[in-house]
Amino acid sequence: MPFHRHTLANDLQIIGETSPSARSAALGFFVRTGSRDETPEECGVTHFLEHMVFKGTPHRTALDVNRDFDKIGADYNAFTSEENTVFHAAVLPEYLPQAVDILADILRPSLRTEDFDMEKKVIIEEIGMYEDQPMWSAYDHAKRIYFAEHKLGNSILGTPASITALTRDQMAAYFTRRYVAPNITVVAAGRFDWPRFVELVESKCGNWEKGRVGREGVRETPGSQRFEVMIKEKVMQEHVFLIASGPSADSPLRHAADLLGMAVGDDSGSRLYWALVDPGLADSAECSFHEYEGAGAFYTSFSCEPDQAEEDLAVVRDVLHGVQRDGISEEELNQARSKVLSRVVRGSERPKGRMMAIGMSWTYQHEYRPVDEDWRAYEAVTLPAIRQVLERYPIDRVTTLALGPLKALTRPSDNGSR
Amino acid sequence: MPFHRHTLANDLQIIGETSPSARSAALGFFVRTGSRDETPEECGVTHFLEHMVFKGTPHRTALDVNRDFDKIGADYNAFTSEENTVFHAAVLPEYLPQAVDILADILRPSLRTEDFDMEKKVIIEEIGMYEDQPMWSAYDHAKRIYFAEHKLGNSILGTPASITALTRDQMAAYFTRRYVAPNITVVAAGRFDWPRFVELVESKCGNWEKGRVGREGVRETPGSQRFEVMIKEKVMQEHVFLIASGPSADSPLRHAADLLGMAVGDDSGSRLYWALVDPGLADSAECSFHEYEGAGAFYTSFSCEPDQAEEDLAVVRDVLHGVQRDGISEEELNQARSKVLSRVVRGSERPKGRMMAIGMSWTYQHEYRPVDEDWRAYEAVTLPAIRQVLERYPIDRVTTLALGPLKALTRPSDNGSR
Repeated sequence: MPFHRHTLANDLQIIGETSPSARSAALGFFVRTGSRDETPEECGVTHFLEHMVFKGTPHRTALDVNRDFDKIGADYNAFTSEENTVFHAAVLPEYLPQAVDILADILRPSLRTEDFDMEKKVIIEEIGMYEDQPMWSAYDHAKRIYFAEHKLGNSILGTPASITALTRDQMAAYFTRRYVAPNITVVAAGRFDWPRFVELVESKCGNWEKGRVGREGVRETPGSQRFEVMIKEKVMQEHVFLIASGPSADSPLRHAADLLGMAVGDDSGSRLYWALVDPGLADSAECSFHEYEGAGAFYTSFSCEPDQAEEDLAVVRDVLHGVQRDGISEEELNQARSKVLSRVVRGSERPKGRMMAIGMSWTYQHEYRPVDEDWRAYEAVTLPAIRQVLERYPIDRVTTLALGPLKALTRPSDNGSR
Repeated sequence: MPFHRHTLANDLQIIGETSPSARSAALGFFVRTGSRDETPEECGVTHFLEHMVFKGTPHRTALDVNRDFDKIGADYNAFTSEENTVFHAAVLPEYLPQAVDILADILRPSLRTEDFDMEKKVIIEEIGMYEDQPMWSAYDHAKRIYFAEHKLGNSILGTPASITALTRDQMAAYFTRRYVAPNITVVAAGRFDWPRFVELVESKCGNWEKGRVGREGVRETPGSQRFEVMIKEKVMQEHVFLIASGPSADSPLRHAADLLGMAVGDDSGSRLYWALVDPGLADSAECSFHEYEGAGAFYTSFSCEPDQAEEDLAVVRDVLHGVQRDGISEEELNQARSKVLSRVVRGSERPKGRMMAIGMSWTYQHEYRPVDEDWRAYEAVTLPAIRQVLERYPIDRVTTLALGPLKALTRPSDNGSR
């Protein structure tokens, strides 16, 4: 599948992977900005801005945006993470020009004050909805406590207070600073004509401001290694997160870290599954590796009846100590590899999956990775590489957060191997 | 993409669509049996049996089943509907033989009494979980009231009472009656070798009992046209379903019915969306067409604040009356078509999507439908065809069920155009 790239005069980047066997096309606008790029006063602005992008432009009302996407039968959406805001649409090949037109237009939003004030209420309601989900809430607090003053600990949604305080002009200033051409990559995958696509994007985005962008605070962190219990009496189950550090998104160790996380805590057939879920000691127990720019982390979590939490925490710590001491077996590595390869390959069969994959690897590694290369990188992971990950990033050196009805939980005397 | 078919001596059917550009393979065992094939004493047995299939065979414990799927990195699952029980797995091409081996093995389950008794508790818990979801609960009750004595009204999950009363021997008798070779189609799609696949299936399933199977009570129904309010004080919102009849799964009108349902009530940009969701009168409002063997139905539903329900019901009835009287516009038809074609095409890009599509059209129409043929069927739908659907199946001749805190809701004096 041929890869193409082109940079406009304003430094906006365009990449694409054309696939003759595809029957649709997927399009994404990747803005390299997220909650880690916010000042404390701007807390939550990236996600709020993602919503405002759909509220209209000088050429389209919010209704028009909705109607125009609907007319072409687009499957469209957007998301905001710690470091990326991505707007995307999947369409039949003949509608790609319209999809480019709509997305390019809405990425220069009007940010009208009336819409801003109205959407503020929606955002505050959304924060409330997430707070009602104990697992998500535990994850968010654990991340904040783990990262401490590191900017990756910034809340993506913000708080009702930070959103209430935010002004339309603060958002406009953030937009002007972060949504500049060199900070945006336009990505297409599937069935489309590359030269025509470049022309289209150039005609719609060629006049976007150039500006200068960067990202502060890119560094590793061992995490705070704190141990906290948050009492939430209305929550039924106890939800516990243990976070340890891991390699970053440009580290050659990241594929090994991914397989290690899966062997330890995939939702079926992993160490944690057999230790907690299969015997019925916990409702769920998982571990997974997340990579960021400059940092990475292993998120281990479980949820259970409150009176079971003390025992379960001891079991999880035993599992993590055991892995840290003895590593994993060749069989566990191979099983994790089968699962990951199966997901990589199945994910690559749709233009949407490829669009996301090439957009992300361009954002993080500034390189194009065909599926086969990802495949080979996972194939090449050996037990010594797993050992290297563990030596550099002890998986049992954890920051712990429990959220639920429990008043207290015993802090273990040791905390990992360092 | 070449289609293949083969029937074994015991009348088990094998079909496959090989695709050279695919990177994985998807496999499904389609058992043509569901809740409509149960006697009143067997209520819930099909779904319960689907669970028991994963509990082990003479050659595998439940643990082995889980471990063997995990070893090959399979994405596997199963579901039970009113008329089908489908077991499926997506894998890398080299693991297809193992996937066939596992699925063929578990489709001859041991049905051990200890496992049966243990799983009974899981099923009863699952029924409780679904009852806690008011939208699902309203759907289930509405379907029961609409279909009345028609067997499509049978509950898929059963009730705690019916599951408690069920014996292991009743399940074994149901299995012997329904899981016979002529009632099963084995389906593969993606990258695989057809002759080798047939050999494999034959070696694993060639000795399965032949038996005789049928299905009783295959007929259309105009529905009971009743109007019921179920009081659930603990539910926050009011959830309302209106069901009207539609064409069946082998009717030439089904593509028109599908587009009509989408124009009336897709979750964005439809009549109901603009009438209720966009102005904030309801949290959700949808209409969709469901097809079954011998019957079909349009399910219209909305949820809202209880004190808004009376007005919203009037709005929904106005929308349905308006559609019945004047049909939809060319623009609405085209927009619905764009959405459906986009979904059809994107769904076809993965072997799993194709496996489901060809398995279902084989089950219902006893024919192979390449993607292009489905495409052409939707392309060919005209406004006169929409009119034909409405004349034969008035969309405003409804059975109504409201579930929520409301004590009463006014029954409209008229009920549709007939």
